[in-house]
Amino acid sequence: MKTLITNVTVLTMNADYDVFEKGFILFEDDRILAVGPAEQQPNAGYDRMIDGRNAIAMPGMVNTHTHIGMIPFRSLGDDTPDRLRRFLFPLEKACMTKNLAYHSGKYAIAEMQLAGVTTFMDMYYFEDELAKAADEMQARAILGETVIDFATCDTSEPHGGLSYAEAFIPKWLDHELITPAIAPHAPNTNSPQALQKAAAISEKYGVPITLHLSEMDYEIRHFQQEYGKTPVAFLNDLGILSKQLIAAHCILVTAEDIILLKQNDVAVAHCIGANTKSAKGVAPVKAMLEAGIRVGLGTDGPSSGNTLDLFTQMRMFANFHKTHLQDRAAFPARDIVRLATLGGAEVLGLADKIGSLEPGKKADIVLIETDSANMFPIFDPYAVLVYSAHAGNVSDVFINGVPIVSRKQLLTQDLAALKTALASEMQDFIKQAKRNENKTVL
Amino acid sequence: MKTLITNVTVLTMNADYDVFEKGFILFEDDRILAVGPAEQQPNAGYDRMIDGRNAIAMPGMVNTHTHIGMIPFRSLGDDTPDRLRRFLFPLEKACMTKNLAYHSGKYAIAEMQLAGVTTFMDMYYFEDELAKAADEMQARAILGETVIDFATCDTSEPHGGLSYAEAFIPKWLDHELITPAIAPHAPNTNSPQALQKAAAISEKYGVPITLHLSEMDYEIRHFQQEYGKTPVAFLNDLGILSKQLIAAHCILVTAEDIILLKQNDVAVAHCIGANTKSAKGVAPVKAMLEAGIRVGLGTDGPSSGNTLDLFTQMRMFANFHKTHLQDRAAFPARDIVRLATLGGAEVLGLADKIGSLEPGKKADIVLIETDSANMFPIFDPYAVLVYSAHAGNVSDVFINGVPIVSRKQLLTQDLAALKTALASEMQDFIKQAKRNENKTVL
Repeated sequence: MKTLITNVTVLTMNADYDVFEKGFILFEDDRILAVGPAEQQPNAGYDRMIDGRNAIAMPGMVNTHTHIGMIPFRSLGDDTPDRLRRFLFPLEKACMTKNLAYHSGKYAIAEMQLAGVTTFMDMYYFEDELAKAADEMQARAILGETVIDFATCDTSEPHGGLSYAEAFIPKWLDHELITPAIAPHAPNTNSPQALQKAAAISEKYGVPITLHLSEMDYEIRHFQQEYGKTPVAFLNDLGILSKQLIAAHCILVTAEDIILLKQNDVAVAHCIGANTKSAKGVAPVKAMLEAGIRVGLGTDGPSSGNTLDLFTQMRMFANFHKTHLQDRAAFPARDIVRLATLGGAEVLGLADKIGSLEPGKKADIVLIETDSANMFPIFDPYAVLVYSAHAGNVSDVFINGVPIVSRKQLLTQDLAALKTALASEMQDFIKQAKRNENKTVL
Repeated sequence: MKTLITNVTVLTMNADYDVFEKGFILFEDDRILAVGPAEQQPNAGYDRMIDGRNAIAMPGMVNTHTHIGMIPFRSLGDDTPDRLRRFLFPLEKACMTKNLAYHSGKYAIAEMQLAGVTTFMDMYYFEDELAKAADEMQARAILGETVIDFATCDTSEPHGGLSYAEAFIPKWLDHELITPAIAPHAPNTNSPQALQKAAAISEKYGVPITLHLSEMDYEIRHFQQEYGKTPVAFLNDLGILSKQLIAAHCILVTAEDIILLKQNDVAVAHCIGANTKSAKGVAPVKAMLEAGIRVGLGTDGPSSGNTLDLFTQMRMFANFHKTHLQDRAAFPARDIVRLATLGGAEVLGLADKIGSLEPGKKADIVLIETDSANMFPIFDPYAVLVYSAHAGNVSDVFINGVPIVSRKQLLTQDLAALKTALASEMQDFIKQAKRNENKTVL
């Protein structure tokens, strides 16, 4: 089926950054056929025409790092010191179930789709359940099963994620939209052997591997004290740095670390919102990009970043990096939109398929309405996306050519029903969380 | 008329920070009569009942610093170095008209109301037109006429705002919702004499005075070179610091400046979003609050801050101050909601009337819906407002007891018509802006 979207300002994000005011997008099934200005718009030969109503059309946004099983944790103990170890880990182990992860996953995907995120990379437990959730939601996703050095919600063994992944990965290797992956939690929460086994699994199946890297001050201290090196140098010496590796955060990397990351073509998932909410600092993204490292934006999980949309991240990115570099002209809006789209696609190894609106690419398309009060005037559509728009401005979303959101409503599922199903699975979690909060919030 | 709002989680922002889950608010005409939990809700004796549908009810938000005439500038040259002097000032002088300011003002107020801002303080030109706009929009507003040392859009004389203000202020002194004020642009863009005259006008009429203060690096250098002192010390020596003064920004204040501001009971409008977008830095708000200075949040104008909602400011505030202080527990969400409500009311000298939901205060009430995907779960409603919500989640707004927004629609005006009227006034501006942009964007 051929679909024509008309009456939109198309931000192609192609190599020339072509923008077509009053433009069109033509796609057939899952593939974009043509993009251009009104005067080149075909008059016939399509089966469906969608009036974009002056929207801004952009490539589907790419969230390079999240934890979709963690919706139940949102707004719980946000301002608690050392929240991860004192709060999240224990509650996860005690209360996270297969069904809870699945329903959280569906809800989180719905939230992302309504916000214009068409592709994401996840790191969590029960990834086989999350793959079912992603499949049902028709999301494009890379799903990394967590490996960590203690028994947790989906395994009774330390590093049990390794065998989980060995079962999980082959099951999903041929899926059109889903790529299975492996996700050792962090260098300091895994033994060197487990890290190497995870890397071997990634290599064996040719799938991505992701971990948290150079995120925590105690992580840096640990590697300095134990090995006299940085976590990045440690991983390099273990032989784990590779172009399949997506390293989340990389806040505390050194200039030498950046050279190592580039030499091994490691990609970086930059989570500015979560990193700064938890006072961890601002990753040196300018230096990374100048070194030629692939960088994308990530929301982190709903408990760390709270929202799963990239508008929040784009605006945070602008303000933090301009301030950090003491240069208001640094990272003009267009560069930031690139990070949220093609940059993310490059990080996930999907730039041949998604990240820009060009003939031959997959029809992952987002329309941002321009009727709301915050969307006028538009001298520069990139600036409007970065500095003015919010997730509530997303009106239409297509993934792989399939309409997922229309006029701000999810077409594929009933959002209220997803919420009811999740809330009903959360009963035990809520009881435990409230007990836990009383004990640990400072 | 008595109105009962039911089925809401009420964040009172009173001295005890009482929160009523499944609570109610009862108000008569412009005045709140009672606020409480479901079991205290009256069964009769009201004329209208509004089902809050599980919304979060909070005091109307207070935007302590903006420029509502500047909607036409939004998304124009955002990433330009020294945008103010090279870009905004010339365009303002060439193209800003009385009608353009008026239509921009109405549109900006609509945008704020839809985002839950019920009170704002403005600094711009043609404030008599903006007062008409605010009156028509039924907004609560303090409107400061700009004084600056060159001829500009509403005066052919340097410091012409002084005589404009002398005519403007008495006209609006008795208005129920509008307070006229005077606004010398900044210490470095006015002569000492003009600053003193502006302060004298403030004193004569008992109205607020506002200016930009300690915002620009070149402002600090100027006062150091010319007078060997800081701008704050300079204003102190001129006798201008007072409890009527609302100083916007105060980014580059010293510890001594903070003491002077406190001694003179000066209030601060903190614009974190605009300050960091322009790479100017992070004002020392923790030190100001510890010194006892009244601090509120401000969006700055739509050309500097781009959005006019306080959700953006609250989230920026959290992330920037936590990162700046290297403490994720600093400024828990509740403190930030306070800054956006009662804190702003204190800054504007209106805390006896607004800023909290308490019997006797004005019925400025905002409901935030909890049906959207980003609004679940809610363990901590303050955290949800600061870390998850966006302007598009505001569902209902009352100002002085009058319903202004219902189910996300403006009741008092047609938003599309406001936009059409503004766009039609913008034709010359757009032509000039496009010429100007070609010349000055780097």
